[in-house]
Amino acid sequence: MPEIHDRRRGALRTLLHENGVDALLVTDLLNIRYLTGFTGSNAALLLHAGGDGKTLFCTDGRYTTQSAVEVPDLERVLDRASARALAGHAAGEAAVYGRTGFESQHVSVEEHEALKVSFDRVELIRTPGLTEQLRLVKDETEIAALRQACAAADRALADLIEAGGVRPGRTEQEVARDLENRMLDHGSSGVSFESIVAAGANSAIPHHRPTGAALRTGDFVKFDFGATVDGYHSDMTRMVVLGEPADWQREIYELVHRAQAAGCDAVRPGAEVSDVDRAARSTIADAGYAEQFSHGLGHGVGLEVHEAPSLAAAGVGTLSAGMAVTVEPGVYLAGRGGVRIEDTLVVRDSGPELLTLSTKDLVAV
Amino acid sequence: MPEIHDRRRGALRTLLHENGVDALLVTDLLNIRYLTGFTGSNAALLLHAGGDGKTLFCTDGRYTTQSAVEVPDLERVLDRASARALAGHAAGEAAVYGRTGFESQHVSVEEHEALKVSFDRVELIRTPGLTEQLRLVKDETEIAALRQACAAADRALADLIEAGGVRPGRTEQEVARDLENRMLDHGSSGVSFESIVAAGANSAIPHHRPTGAALRTGDFVKFDFGATVDGYHSDMTRMVVLGEPADWQREIYELVHRAQAAGCDAVRPGAEVSDVDRAARSTIADAGYAEQFSHGLGHGVGLEVHEAPSLAAAGVGTLSAGMAVTVEPGVYLAGRGGVRIEDTLVVRDSGPELLTLSTKDLVAV
Repeated sequence: MPEIHDRRRGALRTLLHENGVDALLVTDLLNIRYLTGFTGSNAALLLHAGGDGKTLFCTDGRYTTQSAVEVPDLERVLDRASARALAGHAAGEAAVYGRTGFESQHVSVEEHEALKVSFDRVELIRTPGLTEQLRLVKDETEIAALRQACAAADRALADLIEAGGVRPGRTEQEVARDLENRMLDHGSSGVSFESIVAAGANSAIPHHRPTGAALRTGDFVKFDFGATVDGYHSDMTRMVVLGEPADWQREIYELVHRAQAAGCDAVRPGAEVSDVDRAARSTIADAGYAEQFSHGLGHGVGLEVHEAPSLAAAGVGTLSAGMAVTVEPGVYLAGRGGVRIEDTLVVRDSGPELLTLSTKDLVAV
Repeated sequence: MPEIHDRRRGALRTLLHENGVDALLVTDLLNIRYLTGFTGSNAALLLHAGGDGKTLFCTDGRYTTQSAVEVPDLERVLDRASARALAGHAAGEAAVYGRTGFESQHVSVEEHEALKVSFDRVELIRTPGLTEQLRLVKDETEIAALRQACAAADRALADLIEAGGVRPGRTEQEVARDLENRMLDHGSSGVSFESIVAAGANSAIPHHRPTGAALRTGDFVKFDFGATVDGYHSDMTRMVVLGEPADWQREIYELVHRAQAAGCDAVRPGAEVSDVDRAARSTIADAGYAEQFSHGLGHGVGLEVHEAPSLAAAGVGTLSAGMAVTVEPGVYLAGRGGVRIEDTLVVRDSGPELLTLSTKDLVAV
């Protein structure tokens, strides 16, 4: 869809003008994908503020065919050292690229030294985060991909439960693999991140890696997982209990459920990210579990599973319509078990659009 | 195995002395894993040249339990901004950390600016690639992990073929997924990289991504894939023909097979990497296919699937005993089909040790 990439490059040009640079050397592969559609593993983009006529895309010979299909609308150069090749090109036309910005939050100190050699005749300006600024607010193409990724995760979890895949005796690793295969069945191109399947006391470890430990009757089982569609990630956490939930399990589940709902309710354009965090956190703190909720409330989701904005007590900034974020409070009782409930949602003027649709009632199997 | 990490830190200290720095701020997660055993997603290490007494490891609260198990032998600090926390610590003891090196090939320009603020009283020195220099030569613990990863890939391919998993009508994607699941069955913790399963004309694309295209009788099918064990990667390419191989298929297979054997024979301590490349490349060039072998001969393998050294015509340097490298020549006939054969092997004084043991006879199914 060249018109989408064209529109995004147009929006970036506005930022280049605001930052007083003639061009931007884009070297981060996700930013390049966002701006051009290219999905290979080596590329650079020299985006000129004046338009695509002076904009160059570079990749190497392995991607000759692929780049012709994915980036039909830009002049292409083939060179293994893509960033340096474009830097050299810019240096050769100092009148056109006199002040060129670069992604200083991605470019290493050594790579910067190498670029400076090429950029002997143009000024190389630190301009961190320009494309990321655009990526904060998702367009409808991006939201559609996020929706599909979330749907693949929803369906996989439903299938897993329906097929009796969550049962005593199976290991966390077996269950995780089963779940991941079911996401592939539903159109995921791969896991969004290392799946968390944490049973029993392991559910009290926020970032648990699945082990060979078997699920047992009475266990809380925490699933934190996601799918990927067109490069966009989903992120969801749900809880299952094996057998009849105990009173303490019902209690903390109910508490986290209420906190999560309060967090979601606070997701609206203009909301301070710290206020969204507080909406959920105060519910948990009021119940006396402040210390047992040891992480931030949520984060942006898109081409990266964790991206801006950060919904945290120390976070700064406000939400805007079109941002995609997670809301994921938790209460972790060490040695016993923990609960986290997490949705991915889109900030909308009319209230948040929930992308992860699996039930948030406590599921007992 | 703390003693292994202790030994590696000792070797790194020798390099710190040679580079005239008092300490090294390690921020690359693979280098941290290599030096400490830590496998989490956020950490920093301030390694003092004088010993572990002045060495600090930092991660955040999510990894309290995990880091206690994985890094029992170092003083630990918990801080989300790990690198900056350790930089601040060093700045507070300028007499001890007066000249501190940093991984300038990994640290971004922006992160460097932030570190410089913390490092107001100590000198921050660019010292790229020190730990990578050690990682070039694998110790026997690393080679054992590489061997296991290669074995998982070997067994998965054998299982796949034996089970009739490579057959007309199955798509590249289905076959890739089947193969990947079989690697998990054999102890892989995940794929080493995006598996390549390329059938028919797609086999002529060096880096093909599996599609929904079905395998057909007469197709060459190229498998380029790997497993991961304890963080170490395997990398192997094998070819299968569906049905009786045609003459042209036998011909280029035989040619690449000979070139690959010549490349492997050239793998010995002291060999110039460009000479190893030439050993294989000249075989292919002599047969008139120089243009159809469009990439380097191989690369190092370890905690990264692609790492130093690069076995390429323009490569510089020599092999040493204990390096692990791939040898992977190919001939690609656009629109028709291509062949690549790749092994992972360890440079040994007594001749290369082959880690990928799948047959290199052309397999017809």
